[in-house]
Amino acid sequence: MTYCIALKLNAGMVFASDSRTNAGVDQISSFKKMRTFNKIGDRSIVILSSGNLSITQNAVNLLEQHGRHADRLNIWNAESMFDVAQLLGECLREVRDHDGVFLKQSNVDAGANFLVGGQIQGERMRLFLIYAEGNFIEASDNTPYFQIGETKYGKPIIDRVIRADTALADAVKCVMVSFDSTMRSNLSVGLPIDLACYQNQSLNLDFQQHITEDDPYFSQISRRWSEGLRGVFASLPTPEWLGDIDHVPPPQ
Amino acid sequence: MTYCIALKLNAGMVFASDSRTNAGVDQISSFKKMRTFNKIGDRSIVILSSGNLSITQNAVNLLEQHGRHADRLNIWNAESMFDVAQLLGECLREVRDHDGVFLKQSNVDAGANFLVGGQIQGERMRLFLIYAEGNFIEASDNTPYFQIGETKYGKPIIDRVIRADTALADAVKCVMVSFDSTMRSNLSVGLPIDLACYQNQSLNLDFQQHITEDDPYFSQISRRWSEGLRGVFASLPTPEWLGDIDHVPPPQ
Repeated sequence: MTYCIALKLNAGMVFASDSRTNAGVDQISSFKKMRTFNKIGDRSIVILSSGNLSITQNAVNLLEQHGRHADRLNIWNAESMFDVAQLLGECLREVRDHDGVFLKQSNVDAGANFLVGGQIQGERMRLFLIYAEGNFIEASDNTPYFQIGETKYGKPIIDRVIRADTALADAVKCVMVSFDSTMRSNLSVGLPIDLACYQNQSLNLDFQQHITEDDPYFSQISRRWSEGLRGVFASLPTPEWLGDIDHVPPPQ
Repeated sequence: MTYCIALKLNAGMVFASDSRTNAGVDQISSFKKMRTFNKIGDRSIVILSSGNLSITQNAVNLLEQHGRHADRLNIWNAESMFDVAQLLGECLREVRDHDGVFLKQSNVDAGANFLVGGQIQGERMRLFLIYAEGNFIEASDNTPYFQIGETKYGKPIIDRVIRADTALADAVKCVMVSFDSTMRSNLSVGLPIDLACYQNQSLNLDFQQHITEDDPYFSQISRRWSEGLRGVFASLPTPEWLGDIDHVPPPQ
């Protein structure tokens, strides 16, 4: 399993992905699920992936390889993020056409999703979610984020905190908490986390971080969030209709 | 969709279910998903259900109807909760055998799950999760709770708080928070909530509550939890590696 999230805020964008891949509990390993395409002053693009690893890797490899042919539309000369999303969707379809039938013979799920976002000079920041079939949708101001993979455990904190006008530092903090919640409830999502933070109009990926198990910041967030939650929980009132249930012996 | 949770703690048991049922967004209605079978001094049994409403209702109706025939094993004369779980599993299979093929013709999902727990005189408290196929598993001390339905949004707070030795009042508070988180992230889970709290050895369901939209306790929990989370979140440190990202204009 995987957990990836991308936010598109007024101030910039935040991308994060875990690194755990598993094919059964005895085949757990670590793969980077974030790929960045950065050309300072021209474009900053981040791709996050979930699903069948061979499908997602090969689709992005194909996209990267097409990028070497300057005579055709590719990720380095596309004029818009919409074109980039379409290119990635086509690469995904190409790989699925090529490998899908063989995977199906062995009942292997060829499902794969991508988040692709960033900014190209002359355009605003944009964020897309690409479905397994290669079609895609774009994030709007009403929906400033997309998640893929094991999305539910980490969603409540995002829903409570993230708005279009959330500051980038708060957004990164919130993403850390969201990963912490997900990793506590699902063993198949795990460190390290790859994190990229993009400042609107900067056209450069200045802020990237690889968060490993001994990362002091993540440990601190995890511990303090846990303690804080327990504190808030302890301060909540007890329902009156329960009376003194924990201190009265049951009738015999 | 539905959300149901049942906890088996040292001090007693807590059962809770929402009441929303939907078959598409324009057919949302409210049905009780909790059924109780209580005979003071003899047995207290609670059943929670998720999945196809006609299947779950009819399975429980069948169980209740069999209970009128004192000459055969039924929910009122069973000597153990294990027998009760088996009876319910058989009722589920009977209803699915009867209706399943017709539902399949219309591509309607006949899936259904139950949580059944409680105490019968002479036995300890027990809790079972019954799968759609009618087979079942029992909660142990290591796993003091089961959830069915839309389980993920409300799981993180349960994982953080609930232990076998958690007090009943804290467990009820925690279940309220778990429902609050679920309802915020999934529109198809909604009030009212049915809640039952059973004190170990009491052999009576003294504590039952029907929590509607104007319930002052639930509103208070929801508001204070939300404010508390925001407070803890605001107190978390900002990652150093982001520097002063929200106050420095990007390079032009």
